[in-house]
This record gives sequence, structure tokens and C-alpha cells, in this order.
Amino acid sequence: MIPNEPPFSPDRPFTVARVVQWGEADPAGIVYTTQFLDYVMETVEAFWRGMIGVSFYQLHKQHHLGSPTVSSQLDFQQPLRSGEPFTVELRIPRLTRSTIGFSLIGRNTAGAGCFTGALVSCIINDQTVRSVPIPDWIRQPIEAYRAATGETN
Amino acid sequence: MIPNEPPFSPDRPFTVARVVQWGEADPAGIVYTTQFLDYVMETVEAFWRGMIGVSFYQLHKQHHLGSPTVSSQLDFQQPLRSGEPFTVELRIPRLTRSTIGFSLIGRNTAGAGCFTGALVSCIINDQTVRSVPIPDWIRQPIEAYRAATGETN
Amino acid sequence: MIPNEPPFSPDRPFTVARVVQWGEADPAGIVYTTQFLDYVMETVEAFWRGMIGVSFYQLHKQHHLGSPTVSSQLDFQQPLRSGEPFTVELRIPRLTRSTIGFSLIGRNTAGAGCFTGALVSCIINDQTVRSVPIPDWIRQPIEAYRAATGETN
Amino acid sequence: MIPNEPPFSPDRPFTVARVVQWGEADPAGIVYTTQFLDYVMETVEAFWRGMIGVSFYQLHKQHHLGSPTVSSQLDFQQPLRSGEPFTVELRIPRLTRSTIGFSLIGRNTAGAGCFTGALVSCIINDQTVRSVPIPDWIRQPIEAYRAATGETN
Repeated sequence: MIPNEPPFSPDRPFTVARVVQWGEADPAGIVYTTQFLDYVMETVEAFWRGMIGVSFYQLHKQHHLGSPTVSSQLDFQQPLRSGEPFTVELRIPRLTRSTIGFSLIGRNTAGAGCFTGALVSCIINDQTVRSVPIPDWIRQPIEAYRAATGETN
Repeated sequence: MIPNEPPFSPDRPFTVARVVQWGEADPAGIVYTTQFLDYVMETVEAFWRGMIGVSFYQLHKQHHLGSPTVSSQLDFQQPLRSGEPFTVELRIPRLTRSTIGFSLIGRNTAGAGCFTGALVSCIINDQTVRSVPIPDWIRQPIEAYRAATGETN
Repeated sequence: MIPNEPPFSPDRPFTVARVVQWGEADPAGIVYTTQFLDYVMETVEAFWRGMIGVSFYQLHKQHHLGSPTVSSQLDFQQPLRSGEPFTVELRIPRLTRSTIGFSLIGRNTAGAGCFTGALVSCIINDQTVRSVPIPDWIRQPIEAYRAATGETN
Repeated sequence: MIPNEPPFSPDRPFTVARVVQWGEADPAGIVYTTQFLDYVMETVEAFWRGMIGVSFYQLHKQHHLGSPTVSSQLDFQQPLRSGEPFTVELRIPRLTRSTIGFSLIGRNTAGAGCFTGALVSCIINDQTVRSVPIPDWIRQPIEAYRAATGETN
């Protein structure tokens, strides 16, 4: 997954580019259902590393925090084929005291939407496994990104 | 995944039993988000093989049909740990002309719900890639299962 | 993966039974290379749980030991197709002070060998990450299994 | 996986760069055995797309050829951690009438070798599933790459 560079704007969100690997497609030649959640999480992990500045592993090891998924919704519009390049755009339409609401759109090279995802993550103390307020060093880059991409709620 | 045997009833749905493999858990020791859609699809595939009588591959090769996923919703209640046994129950609360609506519940050995899934699949002609009415040989075992498990809608 | 039950003999080793999932096969309809190491490790993990009595997670959490792979060799004789049932047999031709040498054979329903694997694992202290002598509670069930299956080296 | 650009030389082979995803590491925090064959095949697929000019899917769909793996050997020198950047170098020390012999080295950011792989692929007619002579349009870019990287056998 190759992320694009800032600056970001409402029409130019954080986006990663990728090619469908051979083994990610099924005997019908299209990406199988189970693979899409990998694409979503690869994008979310790339956002954490690139925009918040830590991997999930650093979050865990250095900050004793975790970011488990509370819920995920995937909707499929059209298939992605083996070998096909695609992009995934990430937006953050919602941010609460302890949760981050991601919205993702996967597009083929024609720009057509192939899948959309909505993922809610929670920030937890990884010792107590209970939600905690999102610390400022995480909240601020997210708020800055939300402002750049025109999120207003 | 080891499925249970009929007879099925409202309190005893089609259920598969499984253990969390070591590599399915992340550095926090719990099953990672992306893995749950594999658990869901493993269960759905086991249902097709056991209750409808064909694998997805036979559906594709012999019947020229496919069963792509239209949408999937996953909600997480509590973590599953590496090495932990668990079960996944499958119900079919909804059946339309061309779509099958699955409902899944993952439980740990204490019986507590760890995750729930809602998956909508569509039956398509795999040449035209367009939805078709669900053929009787697929619909009848599903309707029989729905009756056995008390689905009434 | 469903393991068989004891007693074991040279002609009846520890064996797990499995079906190829739809998404484990590629657009050519056959299991893709990367998947076979999953089949091998699923079998090795089933052996640990069933015959030594701990999952890798219990080994890690309760005994502060690990069992990383030192080397793996896979050879492919013929393809496994999507939806095809298969078995994996596990033997332990070699056991040293700190290493366990597994040998695996994957067979289709006709009994023909589809793939073979040779895997060497090491037992380590998971704090120092250095190899340690295999403790007796691990060595003894392995030696008993080796004797039952006719290993003599 | 981000590949480097030509020119290539004996000291500068085709190399892809990657970060260990969170879920690719196990509860001990290191990449699990099964994942390494994915890294190897991702690299081989990137070489096919970048240097031979087709994806495995185009090879299959447009040329009616396949490139199944005959054998793979992996050796592990030291662990890769969750979140750690790494590179995989690809060389082709051996090329026969129908087979391609790849050699791969995975390195961490300190340049230390973490794993090595040796993979033999075969070119087949995907209808007959029998090996065929490697066509010139595949052989020539491989020979050019072998010459650039100093392979002489």
C-alpha cells in the first residue's frame, strides 16, 4: 500500500494505492469477501503510521494503548479482479471521546466505487481493556486531518 | 471448523466449532479484526457444503452460479484469545428472490457472545454476473432450515 | 482441521482432515502457494494441542516458551482444487536437544500425495529468545508418538 | 510492497519495501511462520508485473499460461517485529527450459538478514497443466535481469 502525500482537501483525502495479488482473488477471478477487511485495515494502519505517527505496535508497546474495532460495515458495488490496481480513500466523518469513525471507499482505475467501508475503532488502555479518552497527541492530527478534508460534525 | 449434526431447532442452529490458531491473534494476544470475516465465511461455506450440498466451487463449476457478498456487518462485544475454542452459530432470518440474509453469532466456551455478523449474499449467473432467482434446489433446503430454526418472516 | 484419534502406528500417523475453502484457491481454481504453509502450521498446532496438551498460546503465556520455525521446505506434486477434501499426515523423524523435525504429507481423497513439508522448530525461552533444552513434559509425548509411529533415529 | 527502480546491478537487485502489518505478527509480537511465504510471493508477483510486464492474472487470462510453485525453502535467521519496516531482495540464480529459480533475502532496517527463501516455479500450459518451454517474451527480460545482477550459471 502506497499512501499519497499531503496536502489533503475535501476532494483529495488520504488514499493508498495497491494492486490485487493473484492469491487474493478466488476461482471466479475476483477478490473474495474476506480480503476486503484486510484492505480496510491496511489503509487504517497506513493512516496511523503516516498521519498520527505510530504503528499499532508502537501504540501498544510504547503507549500501552490499543485501538480495537467496535464495528465494521462493508458494502460491495462491483468486483475487483485479480491483478487490478485500485485505491482506497480514507475519511474520518466522526470522532467522539473514545471512538474514531472511519469511512473508506475502494475505487478501480476507472474511478468507480467497488466497495465502501465504515469502521468504528475505540481507544483502550491495553491493561484494563477499557475505553479511555483519546489522548491529545492522537486527537490533534485527526482533527487537523478532518478539518483539511472538510468534516464538520 | 467442525459443524454440528441435525436435527436443528430454534435453540439449536447450525453451529461450527473451532479453535483460534496462534497466528490469528495479534501482538495483544487477541484475534485481529480482519480474521473475523474469515470465521464468518468459513461458517457460511460449511453451511453450503453441509446443508445445501455443494461447495462454492461446485456451485461455480457445475451450476455456473456464484454467491457474492452484497454487504457484511460485524459487531464486536468481547475479545477472543489465541488458543481459545469458540463456536459460530448461523441463522437465516431473511430470504428474498435473489438474496440470502445470514445472521451469525460467535461465542466463547462460556457461551458469551464475542462477535455478531450480518451477511447478505446474492445468487448470480456467473457468466452475466447478474442476480437470478434462487433455484429451488438451493431455496428448498434453506427454507427447510429456516422452518426448523423458527424463522417466520 | 479435524484430527484423527489414537492409537497411532507407522501406517496410521497423526492426521488432520480439512476441505479447501473457496477463497484459498486462486483464479486457476487451485490452492495458491502461500496457503500451504497455513495447512502445515494448522497441522503442527493441532498436534501440539492434541498430543502435547498445550496450544502455542499456553506455551507462551504459562510456560514462557516459544516454538519458532527455523526452516521449512515445501514440495508440490499435484494441485489441490477449491472445495476438495484433503488430509495432512504428521510424523516427527528427528528430535534433538532443542529442535523438533516435522515431516508432513498432504493427500487428496484418492490418497495421492499433493504436497510434502519438512519443518524444523526450535524451543526457546521467550524472554531471552535463545534455544533451551526441550523440557521433559514436551519431549516425552513426542518420544511416545515417535515410538508408536516407528521412528528409530 | 514498493519496488525499487532500475538500473539493477549485482549489489542492487530488484527489491521491494514493506512494513509489517499489526495482524501479521503473533502474540509474541513477531511475524508468524505462515506469513513469510506471502512476503516471498508478493515479491515474486511484483517482479512479474514490473520486470516481465504481466500479472499472474494476465499470464493466465491472456496467455493461457500458469506459473505454479514446484518447491519452496525458507530459512529464518532472526525475527521481524510488528510495525518493523523491511525489504525483500530477489535474484534469479537459475533458469532452465521450463523453470525459474528465485532466491530471496528479507532484511530489516539495519540490513541484517531475517529470512532467506529459495523458490522454484514452473511455466505450464494452463489447459494441459503440463510444463512448457519458457516463451521468449518471458525468458528475455529474465535473462536481461540475470545479466544485470551478475548471474553467470
